[in-house]
Amino acid sequence: MPSSKQAFSYEHRVQFYETDLMGIVHHGNYLRFYEEARVAWAIHRGLINYQQKESASRLAVLETNVKHLKPLFFGDIVRIELQVRLQGVRIEFEYKMYRQLSNKDSGQELCSVAKTLHVALGENLRPRRPLQEMTEILEREQWNETWLLSL
Amino acid sequence: MPSSKQAFSYEHRVQFYETDLMGIVHHGNYLRFYEEARVAWAIHRGLINYQQKESASRLAVLETNVKHLKPLFFGDIVRIELQVRLQGVRIEFEYKMYRQLSNKDSGQELCSVAKTLHVALGENLRPRRPLQEMTEILEREQWNETWLLSL
Amino acid sequence: MPSSKQAFSYEHRVQFYETDLMGIVHHGNYLRFYEEARVAWAIHRGLINYQQKESASRLAVLETNVKHLKPLFFGDIVRIELQVRLQGVRIEFEYKMYRQLSNKDSGQELCSVAKTLHVALGENLRPRRPLQEMTEILEREQWNETWLLSL
Amino acid sequence: MPSSKQAFSYEHRVQFYETDLMGIVHHGNYLRFYEEARVAWAIHRGLINYQQKESASRLAVLETNVKHLKPLFFGDIVRIELQVRLQGVRIEFEYKMYRQLSNKDSGQELCSVAKTLHVALGENLRPRRPLQEMTEILEREQWNETWLLSL
Repeated sequence: MPSSKQAFSYEHRVQFYETDLMGIVHHGNYLRFYEEARVAWAIHRGLINYQQKESASRLAVLETNVKHLKPLFFGDIVRIELQVRLQGVRIEFEYKMYRQLSNKDSGQELCSVAKTLHVALGENLRPRRPLQEMTEILEREQWNETWLLSL
Repeated sequence: MPSSKQAFSYEHRVQFYETDLMGIVHHGNYLRFYEEARVAWAIHRGLINYQQKESASRLAVLETNVKHLKPLFFGDIVRIELQVRLQGVRIEFEYKMYRQLSNKDSGQELCSVAKTLHVALGENLRPRRPLQEMTEILEREQWNETWLLSL
Repeated sequence: MPSSKQAFSYEHRVQFYETDLMGIVHHGNYLRFYEEARVAWAIHRGLINYQQKESASRLAVLETNVKHLKPLFFGDIVRIELQVRLQGVRIEFEYKMYRQLSNKDSGQELCSVAKTLHVALGENLRPRRPLQEMTEILEREQWNETWLLSL
Repeated sequence: MPSSKQAFSYEHRVQFYETDLMGIVHHGNYLRFYEEARVAWAIHRGLINYQQKESASRLAVLETNVKHLKPLFFGDIVRIELQVRLQGVRIEFEYKMYRQLSNKDSGQELCSVAKTLHVALGENLRPRRPLQEMTEILEREQWNETWLLSL
């Protein structure tokens, strides 16, 4: 899909400890994978800086919505694409999670889609309007209204 | 609230390892707390039986939606209420999560609400129409359309 | 066993999300269960106070040692006993973890034993000699040299 | 150190959800990082194969021992080295965990060392003597008695 070209992309290898007794990845771990992708995006854009630890706390989670289309298994390589936009004082992410098929030729399959909603935090972890610096970064992001049609 | 009387209720004490560097419970853990409540409900209704291990795998997660209203802290006692209904072949849960205020007199505050959507699994973890036994249990549950208005 | 009478005791119900694809509790979760018991002990003795959040950070982990004797399963009720003593500036815990057998009459079986070693933390999370208050509490604890012979 | 040259090496980036309210990586997560390294080694040697899911269950954990020398923080790049040997019917791993210092020039610091003890599992997850194929792989590994002197 053409929209994928602009989307930020992140990979995660499914670990043994992320599975449950059904033999698949426990659904609670998907929010961790989506967080990994979101943090990687924020690092890439300069919103979070590993050398300034307090920068890790700049985005609080207001709401999450995850759809499960296909299960994930131990050892799977998961690729997450995301897009992000500013909505008033809120920051909205949309995600697609693909599982790389083990037969490399066959490509990938969509396993999960998600939305998360955030608000910027200031001193004392209080919600606040995003700083000018964050707003400028978010306004440069591309957003495609129909990217996550299935959700 | 009157609707609370019929709702199934479950308690969880927030553990040290459930917090993150912001000093609050990591948002990914809420799905674990809601799962604890859902499993406790299923045990109480006889849908899951600890002596039949395969019964633990009778409900797959199709979708989750969690709203965060107030943060949770180490040591908090969380109380979750839920209601459940059959929607075609799908099973829908709604939840309210309260935090007991440390000054006991002051009662509790609503911290999070959620919805999860499930499907019954048969042999080989394949989705299937709920068994007659499960359907009968679900049809006896009370459902209040306006219970989760805020979501 | 006579030594059990003095030991502090804590219970945990094994959750679905604590299992892995082998159908048993993932070994990494045992340190969480032992921490739950240690924190419950510290609360009971007044070393940690849920109303003073900074008290949760009074003990750093220096070393852990866990032995696995029998697996744990979804729904198991786990009972942990512990003893603790001051060793110079270090604080040493020993633990026994029992699994309650589903046929109540048959009692319980020992599933795991463990040792953890800690140091008190002061301001800025720096290791320090335990405060007089902590020392007094620890010196009142009973310690049985042979309690954990199997370790 | 010369011994490091032969050691298998694995990297992990510390995630936000792996921290706790003390602002550091929760000690329970170290066993997950060591497992990641152990599994990566087993994949590399052909003992585990992502396409044969049952191969993931070939090693049960009998005992773990973790020493904590320095804390780990959000965003840290952790490098784990390990060595492994067959001891009778048991399989023994030793690990060193280094934290890459943010000022690249200053190199790395040792944060944790560990030992884990395992047994091979056969059908029905029963302990068994390692298969000839596993024994041959383990006998080709290098083991340095003094590699982990500090433990």
